[in-house]
Amino acid sequence: MKAAIGVNGYGTIGKRVAEAVRSMPDMELKGIVKYTPDYTVITASRQGIPVYVPEGKEGLFEEVGVRPAGTIEELLKSVNLVVDASPGGKGALNKPTYAKWGVKAVFEGGEKPDVAEVSFSTLCNYNEGLDKRYIRVVSCNTTGLLRLICLLDRHIGVKRVRAVIVRRASDPKEDKGIVNTIKLDPPAIPSHHALDVKTVLPNLDIESVALIAPTTLMHVHIVYVRLKRESNLNEVIELLSSIPRIALIEASRMGLDSTGKIVELARDLGRKRYDIYENIVWRDMVKVDGEDLTIVQAVHQEAIVIPENIDAIRASLGLASNAEESMELTDRFLNIGLLR
Amino acid sequence: MKAAIGVNGYGTIGKRVAEAVRSMPDMELKGIVKYTPDYTVITASRQGIPVYVPEGKEGLFEEVGVRPAGTIEELLKSVNLVVDASPGGKGALNKPTYAKWGVKAVFEGGEKPDVAEVSFSTLCNYNEGLDKRYIRVVSCNTTGLLRLICLLDRHIGVKRVRAVIVRRASDPKEDKGIVNTIKLDPPAIPSHHALDVKTVLPNLDIESVALIAPTTLMHVHIVYVRLKRESNLNEVIELLSSIPRIALIEASRMGLDSTGKIVELARDLGRKRYDIYENIVWRDMVKVDGEDLTIVQAVHQEAIVIPENIDAIRASLGLASNAEESMELTDRFLNIGLLR
Repeated sequence: MKAAIGVNGYGTIGKRVAEAVRSMPDMELKGIVKYTPDYTVITASRQGIPVYVPEGKEGLFEEVGVRPAGTIEELLKSVNLVVDASPGGKGALNKPTYAKWGVKAVFEGGEKPDVAEVSFSTLCNYNEGLDKRYIRVVSCNTTGLLRLICLLDRHIGVKRVRAVIVRRASDPKEDKGIVNTIKLDPPAIPSHHALDVKTVLPNLDIESVALIAPTTLMHVHIVYVRLKRESNLNEVIELLSSIPRIALIEASRMGLDSTGKIVELARDLGRKRYDIYENIVWRDMVKVDGEDLTIVQAVHQEAIVIPENIDAIRASLGLASNAEESMELTDRFLNIGLLR
Repeated sequence: MKAAIGVNGYGTIGKRVAEAVRSMPDMELKGIVKYTPDYTVITASRQGIPVYVPEGKEGLFEEVGVRPAGTIEELLKSVNLVVDASPGGKGALNKPTYAKWGVKAVFEGGEKPDVAEVSFSTLCNYNEGLDKRYIRVVSCNTTGLLRLICLLDRHIGVKRVRAVIVRRASDPKEDKGIVNTIKLDPPAIPSHHALDVKTVLPNLDIESVALIAPTTLMHVHIVYVRLKRESNLNEVIELLSSIPRIALIEASRMGLDSTGKIVELARDLGRKRYDIYENIVWRDMVKVDGEDLTIVQAVHQEAIVIPENIDAIRASLGLASNAEESMELTDRFLNIGLLR
C-alpha cells in the first residue's frame, strides 16, 4: 500500500515536492494546500492535483475555476505524513495542527532546527530519520555541502572544511534582488551555512563565508576540504562519480563553464523548469594535493533539496530501511543523473 | 628637479596614472599619448594635460578641437620614464621604441612578466625595483592580494594562501559583460592570480580560484592564510590598520556590507570617479583561529594599482630609497586612507 502524503504550501519547494511524490512508486499525493488562489492553483489543478484550502476560503478558489477538494483538516485526516513547504518560520506554527491530527511532518531548512527531532541529509544520517515524527530537511546550500562532505567522510575521512558560498540573489520568479553589487550575507564569519551543517554533523570543523551575487540561476560553492589522509585526483573523481546526485561535468571540454550554461544544458535535456537535483561539480575545478582537496560546484537552489525531501518521507514512514535503498528509488524515479 | 614622466595610453589606468603623477611633488607629467580622438582627449585637454599623438594623425585631433603637443617620439625624447598603459600585450610591442629613445618604462599587469626585469608590488619588493629600466606593476587582483600577504608576511609570517576571487564582470564604461550567470574564470585551478602573485613571491604556497559575477563595481576576495605562528584578532587588526593602503571598515555598524555601499561612501567622500586606492577589508570578516586567518576584502579594479605605479616610477628613477619613503609621499599626495 502506498503512503499517503500531503504537501502544505505550494511555492518553490512545495510544488516540486508534490510532483516528486507523485512520481514515486511507494507514495501517493493526496493533495496540496494552497492559501491564495494565484496561478499555481491552475497549474496544480491542470495536473490533477487535489487542492485543499483553509476553511471558509473555498469561494475564492471557485472564482478562478478551481473547486477545492476540501479543507486543510480534511487533507490532514487522510495522510500519513505532510511535507510542510510553507514560508520559513511558518512550519513551526503549523506543527501543533499536525500533532493534533497525529500526522508526521517533514519540515524545510527555513525552519529552526528545534522544529524537528532531527535535521536530515540522506547521505549523512538517513538512519537517524528512521521512524521519526518530525524531520527537518536542511536548506539548499547545506544540502549541497553535506552531500560532498558525507560522501568524502564515509570513504576517505574529512578533518576540516572551509566553504565560500556565492549565493544567487533571488529565484527567477521573485523579481527583487541585488543589482550590480556584491553583498556580504551575513557580514560575519561563519555564515549560517556552517552552523546548519553542524545541525547534521555537530562535531565537524567547518567555517563558511557567504556572499550574494546579482544572479538568479544557481549558487556556487568553493569548498576547501582537509582530508583525514592523503588522496589523489583519481580516487576523488571516482568517489564523486559514484552517486547520481553528484554530476561531474567538464567545464572546458564541454563548454559548461558557467551557471548559465549548466541551466541551458538542463533546458536542452527537457528537465521540467530546468530543475537540477544534482550537485554540479566541475571536474576541471577539483584539485587534490595530498590531504588538501579543493572542489567548486554549482547548486540549483530551487530543486536540490527535493530528493532529500523524498528520502526524509521514506525514513519517517520506514518505507526504506537505509539510505541506499531510498536513494535508489528516489534517483531512479526522478531520473537523477545529469548526462549519465 | 622633478622627474619627467610620460604616459602612453589614456584608458582606465593611463588617465589615473597621469593624474596621480601630476599630484606628486617629485614628478612632472610631460604628457600623455592618445591614439584615437575620443572623449578622453577632451577631458585630458581640459585639465591642461599635453596630448601627444602618432605622427600623421594630428589632423584627426585638431578636428575635435585639440591641438596635439607633438608626436609620440617627441614625448619620449623629453621624459625620463614612460608608464605604458596601453592595452594588455601592446606594451611589449612598444618596448623597442622605449629602448631606442633610452627611456625607462613601467608596464602594467596585462603584460607578460618577461616584459620587465621585475614584477613589482611596493610592500613586497620595492628594493628590487630600484634603478631598474623596466618594471611591471602586477594587476589589480594581484596588487590587492600582495598588499595583504606581504604585510602579514613581514610581521607574522605567511606559510600558505588560498584565495577565492569573485571578479567584477566589466568596468562601468565597458558596456559588455556577463549577465545573470556566474562564470569560472578560468575553468581551472589555480587561476592566473596565484601565478601572478608568484612573479613577485616565487616561493609562496598559494592557490587561487576565480569566478566572475555580473557586476561592475569591485572585486571581492576571500583569503585564507595559514600563518607561520599563532596570532589573534587584535594583532591582525592592528597590523592591517597600520598602513593607509588598507582600509578597515565595519560592515554591520557602518552599514557598509556590499561593494555598492562602499562605492557610495567613496562618492560621498568626493573621490574623483569614486576611485578607491585602498584594499577595503571588512573588519567583521576578519577571523583568526590560531595560525588560521580568514580575510574578506573588496578591491576597486580601476584604481587600486595607481599607488603602486607611482612607487614603481620612484623605484626605477631612484626618487625614494625605500618603500616607506615612497609610500609616504604617494599616500599623502593621493589622499589615501579612506575614513582616516
